[in-house]
Amino acid sequence: MDRPGRRTITGFSNPTVKALRALRDKKHRKRERRFLAEGLRLLTDARESGRLPEILVMAEGRDPHPLLAALEADVLAAGGEVIETSADILGKITGKDNPQAVAGVFAEFDTALSAIDRSAAPIWLVAQALRDPGNLGTMLRTGDAVGAGGLILIDDCADPFSVEAVRASMGAVFTQTIAQASWDAFLPWLRGGAGQLVAASLREAVPYRGAQYAAPCFVLVGNESRGLPAEYEAACDLRVTMPMKGRADSLNAAVAAAVLAYEVLATLDP
Amino acid sequence: MDRPGRRTITGFSNPTVKALRALRDKKHRKRERRFLAEGLRLLTDARESGRLPEILVMAEGRDPHPLLAALEADVLAAGGEVIETSADILGKITGKDNPQAVAGVFAEFDTALSAIDRSAAPIWLVAQALRDPGNLGTMLRTGDAVGAGGLILIDDCADPFSVEAVRASMGAVFTQTIAQASWDAFLPWLRGGAGQLVAASLREAVPYRGAQYAAPCFVLVGNESRGLPAEYEAACDLRVTMPMKGRADSLNAAVAAAVLAYEVLATLDP
Repeated sequence: MDRPGRRTITGFSNPTVKALRALRDKKHRKRERRFLAEGLRLLTDARESGRLPEILVMAEGRDPHPLLAALEADVLAAGGEVIETSADILGKITGKDNPQAVAGVFAEFDTALSAIDRSAAPIWLVAQALRDPGNLGTMLRTGDAVGAGGLILIDDCADPFSVEAVRASMGAVFTQTIAQASWDAFLPWLRGGAGQLVAASLREAVPYRGAQYAAPCFVLVGNESRGLPAEYEAACDLRVTMPMKGRADSLNAAVAAAVLAYEVLATLDP
Repeated sequence: MDRPGRRTITGFSNPTVKALRALRDKKHRKRERRFLAEGLRLLTDARESGRLPEILVMAEGRDPHPLLAALEADVLAAGGEVIETSADILGKITGKDNPQAVAGVFAEFDTALSAIDRSAAPIWLVAQALRDPGNLGTMLRTGDAVGAGGLILIDDCADPFSVEAVRASMGAVFTQTIAQASWDAFLPWLRGGAGQLVAASLREAVPYRGAQYAAPCFVLVGNESRGLPAEYEAACDLRVTMPMKGRADSLNAAVAAAVLAYEVLATLDP
């Protein structure tokens, strides 16, 4: 007999399977305000960051693991649900041929600007109209590495809770604070407290190396093809540029953010 | 009447359409030793780097452009073919709903180690078992930006001539020298001349900042999930590590390569 909070699903056409699978679709995900994360490592990162899935889905026949047992116990203790199913059904849910042995369904986090405590970290990453979820996840991962507090998404960015972004973040989606705001809401918020806004720029700018960075430093990169609008750059406290020795005039957005963020880190925390 | 080297294709089932479309598939691409690149900007980068497509495919009804006219003339003068077709058919070939107005079919370049002149540049990027074509293209783009000579692909890497890699390279696939080799071939080649091999490492390593880089510097990053094999790291002249302030223990491979390569650039070319 199943214990409370536990159940087993054996059929592909089970409505729960369909509902979980639908979370890979943005429209459905936004309506449900839930998202999927896969893999014991990611779910353990989440748990150790105080984030538990509402639903834990595990494949039958997986190897026992103390971290999985701990996760299972915590989910049940928090009133969540543990679903056991076949590896094939788990693969259908996550959309992967070789699914990890476990996946979790999380409630989306609050992404209001008010969730950000700017004094909590010396560096914050800011992306404007970033369209590629892989780039977005990579920026979260970089933010974690440089000790940033989080990522602020300006204007129409990719969804940080998409499967691709969560995957590319390598767990940082759970450790970095994420905020979403229009430029018109972000700028007054920023100016309402301490904070230096630094643009990675292609226009008139000082060399990124040796520039006068100050904490809390907000590192802003623009859209993958268009870069930052000129008026956004003009509103920044500092415009910096990286050497471009070849034919290209720009870097990948996530790469530009990382090179700049590591330079800021070296300046603020030498 | 069509001029020599020019033709118009109006049918989706035309064998040339099928043959071009098949270039998106790796097996077919390797057999044909041809690859696809899209967009006037990319094709102009190619042309200015001395690489002309064997076949230029253009959508009817595109806006006239002097760079396109120049490209067309050069392709015909070099004995290539110019195909005019509908935007829908071009979309079928490139696999994009909103295809750029022009695409080219290029012969793959020679990727033997012997194609590399190590004295031609102070920095070379090296990737081991890099599996993601987007990461590979991003590394090519970064290499162009830091003035690297090229990218050496060790062991089983993604295909640098895949549509995704070509796209992510933003033209650098035409400006960077690309070589493919096993580790067992690469290491003797490297030791047969000047060259410092530097690993981005998670193991015992010195801080990447202020390390003693020397030209020609070969910057080596490993596989996205496993990193570099320990014995590869042991064979390096220098192992360096970036600060990791958060929970994660590694960066995205293309990001690690970029942060390290910009540090090398700042040291060698201050």
